[in-house]
Amino acid sequence: MRTVCFGEIMLRLCPPDHLRLLQTTTFEAVYGGSEANVAVSLAQLGCQAAYVTRVPDNELGHAALGAVARFGVDTTASLFGGERMGLYFLETGAGRRSSKVLYDRQNSGMATLEGGMIDWRTVLQHTGWLHWSGITPALSPGAADAILEALQIAADLQIHISCDLNYRDKLWKYGKTPAQIMPQLIDYTDVLLGDANAFDLYFGIQENSEAALLQRVAARFPQLRYIAMSSRAGHSASHNTYGGVLYAGQHVFHSPTYELPDILDRIGSGDAFMAGLIVGLQRAPADPQEIVTFAAAAAALKHYVKGDFNLSVETEIRSLMNGNMGGRVNR
Amino acid sequence: MRTVCFGEIMLRLCPPDHLRLLQTTTFEAVYGGSEANVAVSLAQLGCQAAYVTRVPDNELGHAALGAVARFGVDTTASLFGGERMGLYFLETGAGRRSSKVLYDRQNSGMATLEGGMIDWRTVLQHTGWLHWSGITPALSPGAADAILEALQIAADLQIHISCDLNYRDKLWKYGKTPAQIMPQLIDYTDVLLGDANAFDLYFGIQENSEAALLQRVAARFPQLRYIAMSSRAGHSASHNTYGGVLYAGQHVFHSPTYELPDILDRIGSGDAFMAGLIVGLQRAPADPQEIVTFAAAAAALKHYVKGDFNLSVETEIRSLMNGNMGGRVNR
Amino acid sequence: MRTVCFGEIMLRLCPPDHLRLLQTTTFEAVYGGSEANVAVSLAQLGCQAAYVTRVPDNELGHAALGAVARFGVDTTASLFGGERMGLYFLETGAGRRSSKVLYDRQNSGMATLEGGMIDWRTVLQHTGWLHWSGITPALSPGAADAILEALQIAADLQIHISCDLNYRDKLWKYGKTPAQIMPQLIDYTDVLLGDANAFDLYFGIQENSEAALLQRVAARFPQLRYIAMSSRAGHSASHNTYGGVLYAGQHVFHSPTYELPDILDRIGSGDAFMAGLIVGLQRAPADPQEIVTFAAAAAALKHYVKGDFNLSVETEIRSLMNGNMGGRVNR
Amino acid sequence: MRTVCFGEIMLRLCPPDHLRLLQTTTFEAVYGGSEANVAVSLAQLGCQAAYVTRVPDNELGHAALGAVARFGVDTTASLFGGERMGLYFLETGAGRRSSKVLYDRQNSGMATLEGGMIDWRTVLQHTGWLHWSGITPALSPGAADAILEALQIAADLQIHISCDLNYRDKLWKYGKTPAQIMPQLIDYTDVLLGDANAFDLYFGIQENSEAALLQRVAARFPQLRYIAMSSRAGHSASHNTYGGVLYAGQHVFHSPTYELPDILDRIGSGDAFMAGLIVGLQRAPADPQEIVTFAAAAAALKHYVKGDFNLSVETEIRSLMNGNMGGRVNR
Amino acid sequence: MRTVCFGEIMLRLCPPDHLRLLQTTTFEAVYGGSEANVAVSLAQLGCQAAYVTRVPDNELGHAALGAVARFGVDTTASLFGGERMGLYFLETGAGRRSSKVLYDRQNSGMATLEGGMIDWRTVLQHTGWLHWSGITPALSPGAADAILEALQIAADLQIHISCDLNYRDKLWKYGKTPAQIMPQLIDYTDVLLGDANAFDLYFGIQENSEAALLQRVAARFPQLRYIAMSSRAGHSASHNTYGGVLYAGQHVFHSPTYELPDILDRIGSGDAFMAGLIVGLQRAPADPQEIVTFAAAAAALKHYVKGDFNLSVETEIRSLMNGNMGGRVNR
Amino acid sequence: MRTVCFGEIMLRLCPPDHLRLLQTTTFEAVYGGSEANVAVSLAQLGCQAAYVTRVPDNELGHAALGAVARFGVDTTASLFGGERMGLYFLETGAGRRSSKVLYDRQNSGMATLEGGMIDWRTVLQHTGWLHWSGITPALSPGAADAILEALQIAADLQIHISCDLNYRDKLWKYGKTPAQIMPQLIDYTDVLLGDANAFDLYFGIQENSEAALLQRVAARFPQLRYIAMSSRAGHSASHNTYGGVLYAGQHVFHSPTYELPDILDRIGSGDAFMAGLIVGLQRAPADPQEIVTFAAAAAALKHYVKGDFNLSVETEIRSLMNGNMGGRVNR
Repeated sequence: MRTVCFGEIMLRLCPPDHLRLLQTTTFEAVYGGSEANVAVSLAQLGCQAAYVTRVPDNELGHAALGAVARFGVDTTASLFGGERMGLYFLETGAGRRSSKVLYDRQNSGMATLEGGMIDWRTVLQHTGWLHWSGITPALSPGAADAILEALQIAADLQIHISCDLNYRDKLWKYGKTPAQIMPQLIDYTDVLLGDANAFDLYFGIQENSEAALLQRVAARFPQLRYIAMSSRAGHSASHNTYGGVLYAGQHVFHSPTYELPDILDRIGSGDAFMAGLIVGLQRAPADPQEIVTFAAAAAALKHYVKGDFNLSVETEIRSLMNGNMGGRVNR
Repeated sequence: MRTVCFGEIMLRLCPPDHLRLLQTTTFEAVYGGSEANVAVSLAQLGCQAAYVTRVPDNELGHAALGAVARFGVDTTASLFGGERMGLYFLETGAGRRSSKVLYDRQNSGMATLEGGMIDWRTVLQHTGWLHWSGITPALSPGAADAILEALQIAADLQIHISCDLNYRDKLWKYGKTPAQIMPQLIDYTDVLLGDANAFDLYFGIQENSEAALLQRVAARFPQLRYIAMSSRAGHSASHNTYGGVLYAGQHVFHSPTYELPDILDRIGSGDAFMAGLIVGLQRAPADPQEIVTFAAAAAALKHYVKGDFNLSVETEIRSLMNGNMGGRVNR
Repeated sequence: MRTVCFGEIMLRLCPPDHLRLLQTTTFEAVYGGSEANVAVSLAQLGCQAAYVTRVPDNELGHAALGAVARFGVDTTASLFGGERMGLYFLETGAGRRSSKVLYDRQNSGMATLEGGMIDWRTVLQHTGWLHWSGITPALSPGAADAILEALQIAADLQIHISCDLNYRDKLWKYGKTPAQIMPQLIDYTDVLLGDANAFDLYFGIQENSEAALLQRVAARFPQLRYIAMSSRAGHSASHNTYGGVLYAGQHVFHSPTYELPDILDRIGSGDAFMAGLIVGLQRAPADPQEIVTFAAAAAALKHYVKGDFNLSVETEIRSLMNGNMGGRVNR
Repeated sequence: MRTVCFGEIMLRLCPPDHLRLLQTTTFEAVYGGSEANVAVSLAQLGCQAAYVTRVPDNELGHAALGAVARFGVDTTASLFGGERMGLYFLETGAGRRSSKVLYDRQNSGMATLEGGMIDWRTVLQHTGWLHWSGITPALSPGAADAILEALQIAADLQIHISCDLNYRDKLWKYGKTPAQIMPQLIDYTDVLLGDANAFDLYFGIQENSEAALLQRVAARFPQLRYIAMSSRAGHSASHNTYGGVLYAGQHVFHSPTYELPDILDRIGSGDAFMAGLIVGLQRAPADPQEIVTFAAAAAALKHYVKGDFNLSVETEIRSLMNGNMGGRVNR
Repeated sequence: MRTVCFGEIMLRLCPPDHLRLLQTTTFEAVYGGSEANVAVSLAQLGCQAAYVTRVPDNELGHAALGAVARFGVDTTASLFGGERMGLYFLETGAGRRSSKVLYDRQNSGMATLEGGMIDWRTVLQHTGWLHWSGITPALSPGAADAILEALQIAADLQIHISCDLNYRDKLWKYGKTPAQIMPQLIDYTDVLLGDANAFDLYFGIQENSEAALLQRVAARFPQLRYIAMSSRAGHSASHNTYGGVLYAGQHVFHSPTYELPDILDRIGSGDAFMAGLIVGLQRAPADPQEIVTFAAAAAALKHYVKGDFNLSVETEIRSLMNGNMGGRVNR
Repeated sequence: MRTVCFGEIMLRLCPPDHLRLLQTTTFEAVYGGSEANVAVSLAQLGCQAAYVTRVPDNELGHAALGAVARFGVDTTASLFGGERMGLYFLETGAGRRSSKVLYDRQNSGMATLEGGMIDWRTVLQHTGWLHWSGITPALSPGAADAILEALQIAADLQIHISCDLNYRDKLWKYGKTPAQIMPQLIDYTDVLLGDANAFDLYFGIQENSEAALLQRVAARFPQLRYIAMSSRAGHSASHNTYGGVLYAGQHVFHSPTYELPDILDRIGSGDAFMAGLIVGLQRAPADPQEIVTFAAAAAALKHYVKGDFNLSVETEIRSLMNGNMGGRVNR
């Protein structure tokens, strides 16, 4: 099954060796973005993945697409255009110092995308699944139009649709709130990943218990087949715990909680979780307990891969699920 | 004599080791900009230099000012504000491959500067010289307003004023042409650095001979005490020649032409030339022949310092003027 | 027109900063190989390119394919298999010290390829051009069988075929000489790139004059539509000259000779030349003078791109053809 | 309030990536020294800081001052002179391997400083606070003379004086013991940072309980307004705990004990603590409990900044005081 | 006492900064191999050590020997020959991601060694101890012949012999099992290091209790004076525990178990343990408890030295034995 | 024939990538010194070489000896002692910017060496040649005493003695001039390398013509069998010419003059020349023309090896002598 992921990709600039932005004289450069990260994960896990975005027609735009294509994703439906490459600066924390992200993504190719630019009927040919996130409608009215078009055509083509709510409070600056835009988009979606904060901001749904929260969301969007959440506790910048939850058929399934010491790079772990869910749900028959555990193990391993992409393969994820905590050298 | 330089500073991102933008995984990061480069050169040459700009109040803005302060320039009159740090990507050429610059400077602190933001009477206290360039009025109406204010107050305070015309065709995008803005600013200026292209675009002055060109500019702006030009021939990306011209008292003075093999970094060499002129003109009595030779030798040495700043000191410049072509180890 | 390139790709390990193999503590790692280099050049020049090889099913094999896919080449028809990744160590010379290559490519995926492993009828679907080189039959009997199969099926499908003779004296160790193998393969080929040494070793053809040599080769293989050669003079490891020759319709066309100072990386320049020829010949109508000049200019620019791949684009090549010797900054 | 810090700065050379001195082929170079570290911290925390030292008039000396000036410290009162730059080699430990420091600071600019070289009345103009440490009088008789001069004039100008005892057993090699020199210098001081070992070696004061020790020191130097200590436990080279103590008005105030896993660089944490105290005490009214907690949190964060300088800002320190243990990404 | 270590050395290629093999663009290059590692440890601990191997007569072979000689080991008895340098790729894990080793050692100098090539009587002159491992006979029949020759002559010269069983399941591919080869080689050996898996595969000895296992091995090879084992638990890729066991005179001696957080590089820790045993046993009188503790502390410290070699010195090992857990800076 | 080289080795710290000392944040670290450089060259050229020095008993001292031992030199006769490692900072020039050396070598192990510390009779056992340079007696009276002892014993043992005059004007600071010390040391020497400046300062010999100069030196020291000079012209920091002269049997022999573009590192080229002479003179029969050409070609190649050591081998030197100017890739 071909899965199309649609969203923004950015150039990420990160000082090496835990240096601070204030002191660095070099930056490590990778490309990433929530939906691109999902696409790469899918390809690493053996799925047929395509990625659609809009990048400027300069070296940075071409490098961004190349970075995704390198891992087996089809990027040929992406557009070139827009003023500049969106970028973000990442200062990787350690111990008691938090990681810090400085976004510089205004006026990017995706932010200046407009409705009608993408020929969705062509893009979505031979496609079984469309993945998007709440970042795209947060960028600009044109990007919100584009995702709405995509969803309408996907629905028309009876394509599965998944969404990661992915709330970013530095976005939504163009005069609309998520509550004005998101609900109608979620109406087209059948697999949802979110968190309590996004459920509140997007849908006005607040509940103290996780089960009640999931039930409320399920009730609000009855077409949703699966609702997922992840839970993280951060003991320090280098040591977190991570677990996932999947709501399916009115039941709540929990993954184990993974203890994550000595973290290398947590950016993209939510996308790794999302990709794990998609892979699991595309395989029949879907076993919710196994799926959420697989997705959480994938997310856990992402913390040990630098860059936005989760370059973990299925045998590695299954090995962690089987209790291999990393202490052996794999010769 | 305290010299104030006013203009934009950018984060420069350059792939290491002559890698291309399309292939690099790291960037070398330095900060630079025409007027900041002049300020650093002045400080390296023993002058009291101050630098005024506007940068965002984030780590990048603070790092930019620190990069200038590190070399002895007073940056305390600079403002914090604006959405983002301007930046540019530099791909350093070699041999038959040209160097390439990709600007990404829109909406920077300087581009969103507005008239009245800088308290010029305070900034220009105890100041004998103000340096600006044609980049600032090219950024935005507000930046053009700010430089006009500065010039008016500097004139009122009887401060010397120098300008590098510095034409950038990627700028001037806000609805005005240089011909509409620059002449009235040059009216306040007494030392001018330019080239044939800028004289044409800014003032509509075209002449085939260098002498005639300089005379026409001098006639157009009779308050100008000195007009300078530089001439470069590029045999390859790594091998140029460089010389300077100074028009003073109706005479044209030429520096020697320096042969420049094995260039490391030519960005900022014009600013090094400008700083050499300012230093020479601030010392009494001014000998135009010595001054243009000093300035050209300074510019020549800039080609062998990485980054925008010319970290060459006076003994090094004088040594080149005395014929030391670099072949000896200085133990 | 889709072009399929078939051959071996290797991991190239090169000490940084002109360090010698004896002293380095790090290696820069890129992937390259004659036919992969051609494929990447074709994609950079806007052609539809595919690359077929056989690499081990481990991280290195996947990284090798990803390195090619990153630049827009379709690698999905490649096979995984074989014991190990072929590799080579490159010590980049400078001035009076020659560059040095240490091959370590035995028992690679391609060397252990056997006839019948590749389904050529499927691979060559929708394909208009097949490119191969003399390296493949030099690896092993199985690789020689595979290229013969490919050529037979391509001929059957009336696909254009180009070959770079690419003699490597460290190969041909399996009991056959090029003279025993190559002529029958060239019989299927219509565009040939070679040099005097290869014409002698492969076909026993020796002539003092270039024109006579080309005529002899053309007479020996009457189906050849085009025969090309390149000529290089090495003043030092860092300074060469380069020019190309194209024999077409009984005429000899010469490119200008490009002076190449301050070379960064000459590996792959012959492949850049080959790709320039293929691109030129695929465009109608073919102008031999323009084609050989385009190909030589492409090869000239390759000397200024690190790694095996020529990441130069058409506007850059045309700019050099138009006399831009690299001395200007492209802002 | 302007604070002047006086002491030695060194070039610090540290192998990258936890390599050992015996095996490294590169060194990371930063500049640091106890009093310079305090000055930079003060400037980062918004205070007006100046730094006075003596460095050789060569590139290393200029780079050292630039490294301090870059973070907003006024270094213009420093002297150029002396034979060489003091330096130290730092081997950063990990886990069970301790960090190691190799000093090479003899005959430095500060070690060859002599009384009368610094014009303290000019240096201490417009100054409200002078900070020094026990390292300076340990360098040489001339350095001890210079600090005595500074203290006498500061006392005369009614400037606040703080001292970090900072015992280094590799120093004090010129024929005097700390007990012979330090007490008379402490007589001028009103804020003191020390530890049990220094109290013993400098003043012959030994007590088992912390409270008794602080009372003894307070009784011995009745002019002291504040006495501070820090306590560290080292579980491993990468995991310590850190807390501070402040004795004020006959009461002992303790900061929380911070657990510090995954340490990046602990050098300079004592100086970060000292700077936190100075900042706290300069703000009115002084709340000893809040001050010692602020200083300890500043020191805790220093463990997560590479180099000698604590590039943490007040919001980060307050965030740690408020219980943010580093586990969130600050977007 | 001169100790000769005999075995294979490889070029180890490791991505920096915990990058994965799939994504790295550089490799850190060191040389290592079990017996070379032992030799370097011995030299670091003050013993007279020699190393015998066979490497190709190219830059890599010479660099390999130089890497060992650099730390004071006599490599002059090694041979040059064979097709290629054996190498291995190491992907260093972190947290929940295991480290991974990719061997590429076929057809190396040692693998193509044959009986009679080494003049053992000359090599073993003035030698008191010969160390070998189970890797050598696993490479090829020729290598197995060579070790047998060495052992016979060493026995004839009454040289002490130690062996580390060092089972590698990627080896033993030439048609023999360890059970067919190893027992007769162990018959010559008087100090043995092994583990339960090797005792089973090599000798068919299985026991549930450690004591019983050691007794069985001792009974099977009555000439063995000492049998050692090490025990490791891997909580994560970055956190292990390590302890050693020594069986001597029918008694079992255990080292403390060292907790090893924040591991840098565990490759070679078993060789560090082996070297610690050899050093201890060469010193008279041998105290088994002290020896096994010394060896385990040496192995513990190896985890904090990058590369295969344990560049720890005796004072560091004794400091750990005395309870210094690494938390102090050694100034 | 075993050759012993005696002199000082230093840690050399060099900014990477042509950065200036004022701006670098890292240093490349190698070890080198005139006589160590000769020893390594000798070993690379197949001679049996030993190196004697005195370094501090710390990691830097051990690393220095290891750096020499790594290339096959016997360093076991060196002493550990003295306060500190001598070091020098090297700023590598380019084009019009000269390279710059900043020495920091006072109080090193060699500078604090004293007569009697080295047991020369043992050191010079089985030795046929002793090499020293004018740097050693320039360090301190004790170092001058040590070299005199060495020469007396070498003379007594009828060992050949060579000397490179190697004048350094930053040395000779202990109250003696070279003219007071050197002549008596040269009286023991039979092969001398010098230049016009040293002949003047050491011996008061000045002549305009090279031939007359050599004759005067030969007349002054009649025991000298060979006198050599080298001549360099520096067109720029990156482009020199180099040639050698050998005076033997009253004849003057000149090498070709090598054009040296794109220089990587010229430090140590004189030592490479010296080593070439020693190798040539140790082989019988000595052909002065061939020897001086070999030595000059060795020196020429040194310009293309980074670090102090000339890691060129005989086939490379002979290839240059045969006219291979570096333009071919050595596959």
